Amino acid sequence: MTAALENLDYVFNPRSVAFVGATEGKPKWGFVILNNLVSGGYEGTIYPVNPGKTEVMGMKCYPSIADIPFDVDLAIFTVPASAVVSAMDDCVAKGVRAALVISAGFRELGEEGAALEAELLGKAAGAGITVVGPNGEGVCCPRNMLYSWMPIFYPPAGSIGFVSQSGNILNMMIGHALDSGFGVSRGVSSSNEAQLKTEDYLSFLAGDPDTDVIVSYLEGVQDGRRFLELARETTLFKPVVLLKGGRTDSGIMAAASHTGAMAVSGGLFDDACRQAGITLATTIEDAGLTASSFVNRPLPRGRRVGIVTGGGGLGVIAADACTEHGLEIATLSTGLLEEIGCHLPGYWVPGNPVDLVAGLDLSIVKPILETLMRSGEVDSVMLIMMESQRSRGVNIKETGGDGYDLSPMWNLATGKLTGYVEEMYELMWELGVPLYATINFDESLDEEDEPSPEHRHVMKYENVESACRAIGAMSEYQQYLKR
Amino acid sequence: MTAALENLDYVFNPRSVAFVGATEGKPKWGFVILNNLVSGGYEGTIYPVNPGKTEVMGMKCYPSIADIPFDVDLAIFTVPASAVVSAMDDCVAKGVRAALVISAGFRELGEEGAALEAELLGKAAGAGITVVGPNGEGVCCPRNMLYSWMPIFYPPAGSIGFVSQSGNILNMMIGHALDSGFGVSRGVSSSNEAQLKTEDYLSFLAGDPDTDVIVSYLEGVQDGRRFLELARETTLFKPVVLLKGGRTDSGIMAAASHTGAMAVSGGLFDDACRQAGITLATTIEDAGLTASSFVNRPLPRGRRVGIVTGGGGLGVIAADACTEHGLEIATLSTGLLEEIGCHLPGYWVPGNPVDLVAGLDLSIVKPILETLMRSGEVDSVMLIMMESQRSRGVNIKETGGDGYDLSPMWNLATGKLTGYVEEMYELMWELGVPLYATINFDESLDEEDEPSPEHRHVMKYENVESACRAIGAMSEYQQYLKR
Repeated sequence: MTAALENLDYVFNPRSVAFVGATEGKPKWGFVILNNLVSGGYEGTIYPVNPGKTEVMGMKCYPSIADIPFDVDLAIFTVPASAVVSAMDDCVAKGVRAALVISAGFRELGEEGAALEAELLGKAAGAGITVVGPNGEGVCCPRNMLYSWMPIFYPPAGSIGFVSQSGNILNMMIGHALDSGFGVSRGVSSSNEAQLKTEDYLSFLAGDPDTDVIVSYLEGVQDGRRFLELARETTLFKPVVLLKGGRTDSGIMAAASHTGAMAVSGGLFDDACRQAGITLATTIEDAGLTASSFVNRPLPRGRRVGIVTGGGGLGVIAADACTEHGLEIATLSTGLLEEIGCHLPGYWVPGNPVDLVAGLDLSIVKPILETLMRSGEVDSVMLIMMESQRSRGVNIKETGGDGYDLSPMWNLATGKLTGYVEEMYELMWELGVPLYATINFDESLDEEDEPSPEHRHVMKYENVESACRAIGAMSEYQQYLKR
Repeated sequence: MTAALENLDYVFNPRSVAFVGATEGKPKWGFVILNNLVSGGYEGTIYPVNPGKTEVMGMKCYPSIADIPFDVDLAIFTVPASAVVSAMDDCVAKGVRAALVISAGFRELGEEGAALEAELLGKAAGAGITVVGPNGEGVCCPRNMLYSWMPIFYPPAGSIGFVSQSGNILNMMIGHALDSGFGVSRGVSSSNEAQLKTEDYLSFLAGDPDTDVIVSYLEGVQDGRRFLELARETTLFKPVVLLKGGRTDSGIMAAASHTGAMAVSGGLFDDACRQAGITLATTIEDAGLTASSFVNRPLPRGRRVGIVTGGGGLGVIAADACTEHGLEIATLSTGLLEEIGCHLPGYWVPGNPVDLVAGLDLSIVKPILETLMRSGEVDSVMLIMMESQRSRGVNIKETGGDGYDLSPMWNLATGKLTGYVEEMYELMWELGVPLYATINFDESLDEEDEPSPEHRHVMKYENVESACRAIGAMSEYQQYLKR
């Protein structure tokens, strides 16, 4: 396994690629994926392989890998399963370092497929060739402009590593991270995991300097003990967020025909995961958002949360959700409440959540946040500003009326608010008190005013419940590291 | 209470409005809400009331309600609490039918405020005046172009009625319905519920021909038995989706200072709600999406679900989520599987979920859906097509590469797919088998190709888990009605 792991980097950073099954102009993966490789801007050399063609997408095409007169780091396969197995001999002879097998028709089909998979593995193992897949959608490594996968989708580089036994779910988790403002270090659809397992990718990402957080979708493990052992080693260095498919009998049956994975029973496995420091996600969106939450944010030192909310009802929802995620709504001292109260009208009811009682002057938000963060009475601070849904709705000009356009007045405030959160970035690290902002105001800003994903520091949440779940998950992970 | 309920229609459909606290050009609710009323296109007459002004927003301003020489159906208040109570005498004298009290400073502030609230109520009750609020954000009735509320937000008319003890959450639930393609029949921020309670609004909406589905956010009830009784009567006619705030001690404390509501304990109340046919939501988004799910869809006759998925992993997630929501992944007969298999390649593994095994020819989707719907072996059908995340990502032109633009090939398929779902609308009603589609392809379509909210029949889901939750909720409601 060590050789296979060592060569894994060639899957994400190959100097040259042989593409076995290359074609053009047809709705086939041999065209779509090759096109993604080219369109994505991959800067290494591509050698299309297809015995029926002399040229594909303007590149010289070879009948077989053996016919390529240059070194090949990575072979990508979209041809039928039996053809992959035959071509592996060429890979061995040629000293290819790694194989990315997109092709289906292996273990997920039953005994015959499993035999093919074993044969493929045997050949690769003898030569120390790394095998990713089979039956996957491929990988991406945006830093190297490598998108050797199915979706016509080129996410930007970032610090989140993705490992998924499903290609769809890989894309969707990446989509949610992107919506949060963060990109991808490495993404891999591990699928059948004939050779490298999820836990191997975790180990690899644990040592990857470009990866700060790992998120994984898992349908089953082949060796539970090994999985938990390697996961435990990984979580000592980096947070691992895990979404498990096959939590119910129906799910397990569906998983068996999907990746042929051996499922592990829900409750026991979940407990073991938690004991290994893994953060369990409940939905695809939750997996993407929770992983994003760990980026650019200190871990809360404890469970006490301070909530500042533009609306009372959202404060109630947040208090419920925090409690349900094992957090504590901090009891604030009289002195601190008085300090906060200076910024609020006489009819404010002192307490946590700090309800801004529907005021229209948003300049009070910043001093109140700062007072809470500096107080020493809370371990994390949550800001909720969801007063308006303007951006979703019909704007003034589309209605029949002829009132005033209040946007300028409003935008000034919302621009400020978005700025406040970014301005808190340094303070958050200085004090070690993370800030979680649920804001939908900024959608109304001009796009130019929005910091680009690369320059935005702090993730914002679109709903209160996700933010509370994130605080809970990060507190839990911090408690785990302390033990 | 009967008189108050009878006059409630004047809150949503007044011929004339006196706006007490009208002002202009300042960040005050007396300006923002008045401006919304005008901007929204309200066609009745508005009488601004403010002793310090002779004109507001180009309209003649009166010193008091008593000074208005015309009939007034509805009085809206944004002045301080004590001023509302005094002005109520004028309302009584003038024969005003209803009062919408935005002003805070009542029961939520404690004893003194509660006394003011009681005084307000006493005056109103004696004259049969309906009181909405106090301490709310207002109401909307898009059919009458009435937006007498805080947010600068003018959602379109539709068939969902909203009742919320929080203004923020009202807006957010409406936003989620809007995202689903559906609009608002009536929206009300009930807040302190000095006079009319949530259950009164439920009764009112039960009899409202413009409302097909009701969704409500509740922090507490003052008379649990009465709430459940009226809710039970309502759910016999229309589905009621309920989100409860104050599920935990911290949430209950926050709710007490928000609306002064008396909370009811979580588990017992939840059970009683279910027994009254209420659908319980878990998050704000869930409340909005579940309510939308009921629009334009027959109820499933049983719990058997057929799943058609473009990706195996999403099939696993769906099977898990369906099972967790009390549904059953239907065991399909050999005959039916053979019929479906005709459309799929040889390496397809027969079963439910029906995994389309990452095929690129989407024309098979329609016959497979139809075969399943007509089979009599399932009570609902779920389609999952989330192959690509193109719309979220960077498009081809932004990358460094120079591959082909595959959009035309892809868009043809996605356009078809969106069409298929709409084409199933009649069949769905004919067979009584609802279809739930989770598709993110259509985001890539030109906006002109998108059916407008008024013309779109079937809600589409952005994530698999929400769709499964909706199927579960609708099956549950159907089982309730059957009993």
